[in-house]
Amino acid sequence: MGAPVPVGLLSAAPSAIAAEPAPSEVVGVDLGDRSYPIYIGAGLLDRGDLIARHVPGRRVLVVTNTTVAPLYLDRCVKALSAEGNLQVDSVVLPDGEEYKTIEVVQQIWDKAMECRLNRQSTFVALGGGVIGDMTGFAAASFLRGVHFLQIPTTVMAQVDSSVGGKTGVNHPLGKNMIGAFYQPTCVLIDTETLDTLPDRELASGVSEIVKYGLIRDAALFHWLEDNMEKLMARDQQALTYAIQRSCINKAEVVAQDELEGGVRATLNLGHTFGHAIETGQGYGVWLHGEAVSSGMVMAAHMSHKLGWVDASLPQRVRELLLRANLPVDAPPSMTPDQFRTIMAVDKKVQDGKLRLVLLKGKLGGCVVTGDFDGSKLTETLDEFCHR
Amino acid sequence: MGAPVPVGLLSAAPSAIAAEPAPSEVVGVDLGDRSYPIYIGAGLLDRGDLIARHVPGRRVLVVTNTTVAPLYLDRCVKALSAEGNLQVDSVVLPDGEEYKTIEVVQQIWDKAMECRLNRQSTFVALGGGVIGDMTGFAAASFLRGVHFLQIPTTVMAQVDSSVGGKTGVNHPLGKNMIGAFYQPTCVLIDTETLDTLPDRELASGVSEIVKYGLIRDAALFHWLEDNMEKLMARDQQALTYAIQRSCINKAEVVAQDELEGGVRATLNLGHTFGHAIETGQGYGVWLHGEAVSSGMVMAAHMSHKLGWVDASLPQRVRELLLRANLPVDAPPSMTPDQFRTIMAVDKKVQDGKLRLVLLKGKLGGCVVTGDFDGSKLTETLDEFCHR
Repeated sequence: MGAPVPVGLLSAAPSAIAAEPAPSEVVGVDLGDRSYPIYIGAGLLDRGDLIARHVPGRRVLVVTNTTVAPLYLDRCVKALSAEGNLQVDSVVLPDGEEYKTIEVVQQIWDKAMECRLNRQSTFVALGGGVIGDMTGFAAASFLRGVHFLQIPTTVMAQVDSSVGGKTGVNHPLGKNMIGAFYQPTCVLIDTETLDTLPDRELASGVSEIVKYGLIRDAALFHWLEDNMEKLMARDQQALTYAIQRSCINKAEVVAQDELEGGVRATLNLGHTFGHAIETGQGYGVWLHGEAVSSGMVMAAHMSHKLGWVDASLPQRVRELLLRANLPVDAPPSMTPDQFRTIMAVDKKVQDGKLRLVLLKGKLGGCVVTGDFDGSKLTETLDEFCHR
Repeated sequence: MGAPVPVGLLSAAPSAIAAEPAPSEVVGVDLGDRSYPIYIGAGLLDRGDLIARHVPGRRVLVVTNTTVAPLYLDRCVKALSAEGNLQVDSVVLPDGEEYKTIEVVQQIWDKAMECRLNRQSTFVALGGGVIGDMTGFAAASFLRGVHFLQIPTTVMAQVDSSVGGKTGVNHPLGKNMIGAFYQPTCVLIDTETLDTLPDRELASGVSEIVKYGLIRDAALFHWLEDNMEKLMARDQQALTYAIQRSCINKAEVVAQDELEGGVRATLNLGHTFGHAIETGQGYGVWLHGEAVSSGMVMAAHMSHKLGWVDASLPQRVRELLLRANLPVDAPPSMTPDQFRTIMAVDKKVQDGKLRLVLLKGKLGGCVVTGDFDGSKLTETLDEFCHR
């Protein structure tokens, strides 16, 4: 690992790490007294010292799932246990979006109660977005709030869900309906954990990286157009760059709007269409990033119909996502009515009016608005559902 | 109802209410951008205009239980529905501490999802402490946080649990282990709702009023010594005064220490002994305030043994609580060992050392400390368990 390269919003890396062997990259998330660092680099999972620095008490509960546990749990527990004073317990949950429920969160609380964890304890999320979201909500609610640390092991979790403090579970009638805004004390990204990630999961995460290019980072979009094959081949340097750049984008947006009152909603580009796809088909048929991929093409297409972007943009979006082996059409089974029904209960609905993230102006520009010609949405749904 | 009498920490009543018919009393809870008013008066339940002023959106979900619903739900819904734009739904939960569980909170979320409530919605808690705690946690977690308004209908909820933002549910292995700190937009106390409160519940709430006198408000204690019979006879003026004064005390403590890092712990006078009584007998055998009543006498007695207060104080506490028909001894079935075992796992235990809220100095003075002669605790337990 090279010298520390502080990037992002903090003008320097946190001073506590100055005297220690440093990870490759540090991105700061600037949220006042809830600020925290994101460490990015190869092999960080073995850096128990780095993790322990962000564990205030003596008790740790590592939360993971049946897929990740055989791969990384022992290493994580060993790295932490090597740090003198820490007592480490763990709980292994079933793997899959269908287990992102309040009942499974209860398993975390049960384990924490059995271990008699106190208010100074830390919950560590080791896994993908589902594990991170559930562990974060469990931490937010246990004894009205204990410490929380993220070790995301999927691209999706590394570039999106682990940054920004959104935690929660699904309700039978909707995704992510139950939860809390709750910030971790630190996010630790070991890029080597991506070696074991299935291809579809890799592509799903790349979908969110493309999103940052579209909503606010034209240079990243250009870089992706030049380097998509390297990224899909898991070139470590390309991965590190794309993840770091994504974390910087997300951190900047979150720092401006922690509780999603304004600009943070732009991070939902493609997500309203995408949620409809996930809900319509049943969770898990398409991965989140796959649904977002189709959703972004739909949003880009509709933006062009509204006359807000050039005809070339939806085409470039479609081509780039296809190179990542991502879907760019609605699932054949879904109807426009199904989309409309599900989109009507979206969290962004205000006073009965659906608001969408749409592209506008030059590449990298977007708006969140309910002020659009509804017939263009109808046309878009019709066209994508009958391709 | 008379002219508005703003009291408490805010220098004036919120300006929004200046031009409107005003309730009898307004207490401000000063928590920066989470500040909110507590309205206290007879007949406020019919003041839909007052409630609606603190409902930012158009959708309201009233949460109550099977005991309170037949008494006050229709009036509450009617008052709110009379306010032009509001659409009011309701959910009726089973009544009792044994239903203070995450499974019952799910019934609130289910109803909110069925009604398609959005982020601008408001959950209204109509009932006692259990309803308030569950509704608050449901609101904190629904869509990662919707608005929340309290209409407490027991003395206990009016003077204690509805003020301060502690919300949550019990875990099978411990009380209030799952929850959040979440502040309401407003608390509305209709003192007439106490007309239907059972005598034991009334006394249980009065126990917490006595507590404020002991920990920080000697004048309130004197007033109680002069007016206990009026209070127990449900004299409206006496109730209003005692509730208002209690809310001011709680609001001041909470404003100093929202997340219970310091002075807020003084609110637990009598609660460590009381908690042992509740656990030892099984929850619900004694009401919370009944257990706290005995606990306060024990704490006062021990404080005198330590030489920290005059001999007359434990005597005055005992006599005052007896006039409210509250218990002042340990339950006959309990042994000193049982007390010791249960108190050893109290949340306030730090590094193996039991900390207690004890009286010290003049009436109205107290300390939270683990620094006391343990033999005085032993003597106290022995004496109270063999009376």
